[in-house]
Amino acid sequence: MKAFMEPKSVALIGISRKSGPGSFNIMENMLQYGYRGRIFPVNPKAREILGAKVYPSIRSVGEEVDLAVISTPRENTLSIIEDCVASKVKAAIIVNQGYADADDKGKKIQQGIIEVARRGGMRVLGPNTLGVLNNFNGFTTSFMPIGKQRTAVGLICQSGILFVGALEFSGTIGKGIDIGNACDIGFYDALRYLGEDPDIQIIAIHMEGLNQAREFVSLAARVVREKPIIILKTGSSEKGAASAMTHSGTMAGNYHLYKAALQRAGVTFLEESGKMVYAVRTLGNLPSMKGNKVAVITFSGAAGIMISDALERHGLSLSSLAADTIRAAAELSPEWMPLGNPLDIWPAVMKHSTTKAYSIALRAVMNDPNVDGVICVAIAPETPAFSFLDVSETLNEVMEEAPPKPVVAWLYGPNPLEMAKQFESRKRIMTYPTLELAVWALSILRDRHVVVAMKEPEMR
Amino acid sequence: MKAFMEPKSVALIGISRKSGPGSFNIMENMLQYGYRGRIFPVNPKAREILGAKVYPSIRSVGEEVDLAVISTPRENTLSIIEDCVASKVKAAIIVNQGYADADDKGKKIQQGIIEVARRGGMRVLGPNTLGVLNNFNGFTTSFMPIGKQRTAVGLICQSGILFVGALEFSGTIGKGIDIGNACDIGFYDALRYLGEDPDIQIIAIHMEGLNQAREFVSLAARVVREKPIIILKTGSSEKGAASAMTHSGTMAGNYHLYKAALQRAGVTFLEESGKMVYAVRTLGNLPSMKGNKVAVITFSGAAGIMISDALERHGLSLSSLAADTIRAAAELSPEWMPLGNPLDIWPAVMKHSTTKAYSIALRAVMNDPNVDGVICVAIAPETPAFSFLDVSETLNEVMEEAPPKPVVAWLYGPNPLEMAKQFESRKRIMTYPTLELAVWALSILRDRHVVVAMKEPEMR
Repeated sequence: MKAFMEPKSVALIGISRKSGPGSFNIMENMLQYGYRGRIFPVNPKAREILGAKVYPSIRSVGEEVDLAVISTPRENTLSIIEDCVASKVKAAIIVNQGYADADDKGKKIQQGIIEVARRGGMRVLGPNTLGVLNNFNGFTTSFMPIGKQRTAVGLICQSGILFVGALEFSGTIGKGIDIGNACDIGFYDALRYLGEDPDIQIIAIHMEGLNQAREFVSLAARVVREKPIIILKTGSSEKGAASAMTHSGTMAGNYHLYKAALQRAGVTFLEESGKMVYAVRTLGNLPSMKGNKVAVITFSGAAGIMISDALERHGLSLSSLAADTIRAAAELSPEWMPLGNPLDIWPAVMKHSTTKAYSIALRAVMNDPNVDGVICVAIAPETPAFSFLDVSETLNEVMEEAPPKPVVAWLYGPNPLEMAKQFESRKRIMTYPTLELAVWALSILRDRHVVVAMKEPEMR
Repeated sequence: MKAFMEPKSVALIGISRKSGPGSFNIMENMLQYGYRGRIFPVNPKAREILGAKVYPSIRSVGEEVDLAVISTPRENTLSIIEDCVASKVKAAIIVNQGYADADDKGKKIQQGIIEVARRGGMRVLGPNTLGVLNNFNGFTTSFMPIGKQRTAVGLICQSGILFVGALEFSGTIGKGIDIGNACDIGFYDALRYLGEDPDIQIIAIHMEGLNQAREFVSLAARVVREKPIIILKTGSSEKGAASAMTHSGTMAGNYHLYKAALQRAGVTFLEESGKMVYAVRTLGNLPSMKGNKVAVITFSGAAGIMISDALERHGLSLSSLAADTIRAAAELSPEWMPLGNPLDIWPAVMKHSTTKAYSIALRAVMNDPNVDGVICVAIAPETPAFSFLDVSETLNEVMEEAPPKPVVAWLYGPNPLEMAKQFESRKRIMTYPTLELAVWALSILRDRHVVVAMKEPEMR
């Protein structure tokens, strides 16, 4: 994978002469992205592209090429692959669609590519891929603009939009590999690379089909002890599986079998794509949860009830709060207030300041031995008019001296986006747009604890 | 309910002398909100509040009072209720907590209140409530600031935060009734009022406990034929139900029984609070869906597969597109492209303009007799640099001549919030933050069709 992720020289075969918005010019995007290695544009119909000399073919380059990025019509690809092998190119990315994802003709071409590349010892990524993304050295082969965050999140996917729309899918990508049709490089190779990569601490995967399933599952079981792995496996429906054949040309396989095997390996398995961003945020920032018992601090009794319902749905339970915790809450509350878990601190908020009520309550539950994790329902007020209701700073201060238990928050009020940033500023408290997601986040942290706590799987 | 929602005169009993941020002064909020009726502040310890003359008791007002809003310690409430009855006040709202939601003493006081009020012919809302909100005449009894949208959305709830945080819960409230502990006015009365109110076209309900269950269900079955009713019933878990006793002092009842009865009545029943805002947006804006068959237009094959999976989970299916529709897509696409549903228009986007590809595809599926509803996966590009990828205007133009089928969109890319506003500007296309929610939205529109199409329930 090194030739893909950290190439010293790249040939861009079939590079477009057009540039600017809408042209999707790989070279232009690569330069804007900050690539500092050598670039050899190859196009028999051009002499100069973006100020660089253009070569008529890869054979005419005459210098060492680590990686060839090929964006030609499929009719030409096989002979280009032969040229690359002859020129001792180490690795090739085939960008375009129209291979196993398309028709019989495309399948045959893809099969030919694999045979030629294997014989020549060249690895191939794709076809039907945006290629790779490495924010730690400013390299990408994407023809679409993508984010530049140098984060510990590795992404493996079978779709370019998960690169381009990473903000929504995984939240961020530090390094990414789009395996596309996976004719050669597959999930196994990509996971091995990111699993061993010290820059990467968490791995998000979008999976349509899976080759080398047995090897992948056993590799995942090893990697996941050090780094959380989150997998969205699509194609659970008959129609979805059929579409996977025409999208990445891969067999979706038996969804439920994969699901069982991956969960058993310790992977966080997602049923809904919209949860990936929250899974990454949760497992990437919060400590795992050592048990099932959750304390709820809320300014709304109604929300406390909704959270109780959601906890049960996710196999979590409400802690029986210790006497010290109840005592701390009782000092804040009116005498008639029934105190327990959920801890409804609205009467305390009305009596004292919002910040005082929240900080005393959070400190108490964090130090409560009966509590494994905490959900805070906090107000997201308009600032600055209602800043006196903002408890983000206060709660973050409490967290500085708190034991390593996960704290998630659901912010309720007119200003949730700005408040979320403040709550998350020290990465000790994560926020979620719905209370259901906040509860689910704790459930995957509980599952994560089971994975890290067991050195060896107990069941065989 | 009229005395609550449209009072000509209001007495504020136990009104605070403090005003400004953090004081939660009802009178101040009421004035800021725009109430134009008469206000009589009542507080034996004050002579003037916010420039208005203060009365020592309700008996000393000596003028006709439609509504009394009572915020006194619970020890005084019973005698105040007696005074209100003696002064021929038509209706009273008891704001504070500490009644059936608290302890035995509180329960007894609440019982006493009911008896006195019933005997005197005065209706009571609460205790433990923010009261009412009527954006059509600028009236509220909330001591917290709330939104002022004059929309056709009615809300009935048992929690003040659903008033204050309406933006997140139901998206908007035109008129709202917080029944709190529901000692007198309950869901039945509130639904009857909003059901008959011509300003209100859709009703959102947050329900902890339900009295008069039989009457409510049969009323709901009548109202729902004209106006969608969406209910979030909380307390599904044992702990949640127990918390409901200490929150609103109401019995949560048998969750599954209520669920079955309400669904049978034609109500949209929610399991997750986070879905209310999308249910209101969907049922309030889009036409119902006459069948199960959905067309998917996507620029991403991967998203098409995820949507296929989600459709199956929600009991929907992919339409078999008509020959005309396939022909329209074929003219846009490369010859090798396998065409079907989901309709992957990325190759067409690469070959033509994004707007051309989307508008031809949307027009074709909207006119396809095999299609009951449509999901569009569209790009949410940064503007203005990538505005050429923005199809919101184009799709809205297509909708102007399209038959009444629901169209939902999932926007993917770096700029979903701004793009969502543009897509929704004509209220013909609604957008959702995840594809799972977009699919679910179509499923509730299908269920809605079943309700409106059946004049009489078929099963008895």
